[in-house]
Amino acid sequence: MKHFNCHEIKVMPDRVRAMFINSLSGFKSANLIATANEQGQTNLAMFSSVVHLGASPALIGFVMRPDNGQRHTLNNIIETGYYTINQVSTEFYRQAHQTSARYLKEQSEFDETHLTPLYIKGLSVPFVEKSKLKYAVKLQQIMPISSDNTQFIIGEIVHVICEDVAIQEDGYIDIASLGSVSISGLDAYHNSLSLGRLNYAKPDVKLEDYKLAIKARWFDWLSKRKGK
Amino acid sequence: MKHFNCHEIKVMPDRVRAMFINSLSGFKSANLIATANEQGQTNLAMFSSVVHLGASPALIGFVMRPDNGQRHTLNNIIETGYYTINQVSTEFYRQAHQTSARYLKEQSEFDETHLTPLYIKGLSVPFVEKSKLKYAVKLQQIMPISSDNTQFIIGEIVHVICEDVAIQEDGYIDIASLGSVSISGLDAYHNSLSLGRLNYAKPDVKLEDYKLAIKARWFDWLSKRKGK
Repeated sequence: MKHFNCHEIKVMPDRVRAMFINSLSGFKSANLIATANEQGQTNLAMFSSVVHLGASPALIGFVMRPDNGQRHTLNNIIETGYYTINQVSTEFYRQAHQTSARYLKEQSEFDETHLTPLYIKGLSVPFVEKSKLKYAVKLQQIMPISSDNTQFIIGEIVHVICEDVAIQEDGYIDIASLGSVSISGLDAYHNSLSLGRLNYAKPDVKLEDYKLAIKARWFDWLSKRKGK
Repeated sequence: MKHFNCHEIKVMPDRVRAMFINSLSGFKSANLIATANEQGQTNLAMFSSVVHLGASPALIGFVMRPDNGQRHTLNNIIETGYYTINQVSTEFYRQAHQTSARYLKEQSEFDETHLTPLYIKGLSVPFVEKSKLKYAVKLQQIMPISSDNTQFIIGEIVHVICEDVAIQEDGYIDIASLGSVSISGLDAYHNSLSLGRLNYAKPDVKLEDYKLAIKARWFDWLSKRKGK
């Protein structure tokens, strides 16, 4: 095993340290965040820092780097109060990566990378049509991180659009079956193979594989109830 | 495609909503956070919310849920000011999952899950011996998230220990080669297959696969320089 101390990390060449430190957090989610300004000019940017915060209320966070290129996203979010987060899958991860090029403000990454926007009624910001799992988020809080010049952006999930087949009976969405990709470091993409699900862990109980109880899907139940 | 609006998300049964919302962020990193109190009593807990914040300074964040079981971790971090983050790989992901059982305060998850602690000189908190990529972190900031009862814990990376073979010439660590796992939802584990690395994206330049320039490893150069 190789051991690097604090000093050795500090004296690494900048680009090396960026690659190295970006590898430490482990696999990261690959998401495209789509926004629009008040005039409807759209922006699309890749983020690897989307993180779950809570289910009730349904909150999601992401880290905004102190980088000019990404400021279009933040400015738009502040203007409209909304954004969409779109999971990236194997079919379009190269186009998704290409959105990180420094396009001019008047260029939309949708056009430049040939990704089609999808609008729903009552929401001024687009989704990425190709994404198989995507959701609209309402801005809640922008937290400046004082140790750094980054910001942590927190929002509430207000719409979810997902391929039916991936949603399991207990609410779990099988994102591996959707071909969702993960990122490591700054530029490495990965496909995922399932190792299975594990039961809720209890002290002094042997850990077993999770077995899905076969029952009516909760969303069938939900739609029946809505019909009443 | 299935569409769920804000109201439909709110009326989902609690456990269904937890599974569903936890699937939305995409693949998550699997890390064991190890801590100790001032008396040296250790604690080990699984976290899927570790996120990269910056490379210079080398900062890392994670989300602490408002859950009593995890408070041992936070109390210890506050007591000593240090913790370690240990990437979980296929060899011990089941043991890692088992650390989420609600053990008593006087029980250490190291003992209960048969994972061996590893100590280095000058640091009172242990690493997980089996982990192939692990680092020690010095607490910087605890940010309460007002929209929720969670906290965002930020620290600086002060030691990194990693298998030599995974560290590439440009600083990138090939975590797929280490068998590092990812998590989706609350309890699903995944292995990763590499789709390759992509070049830095530029406007109007065709995106190419990244090719590693063969040169002396920067850490060989570093150790030679240190010897001078």
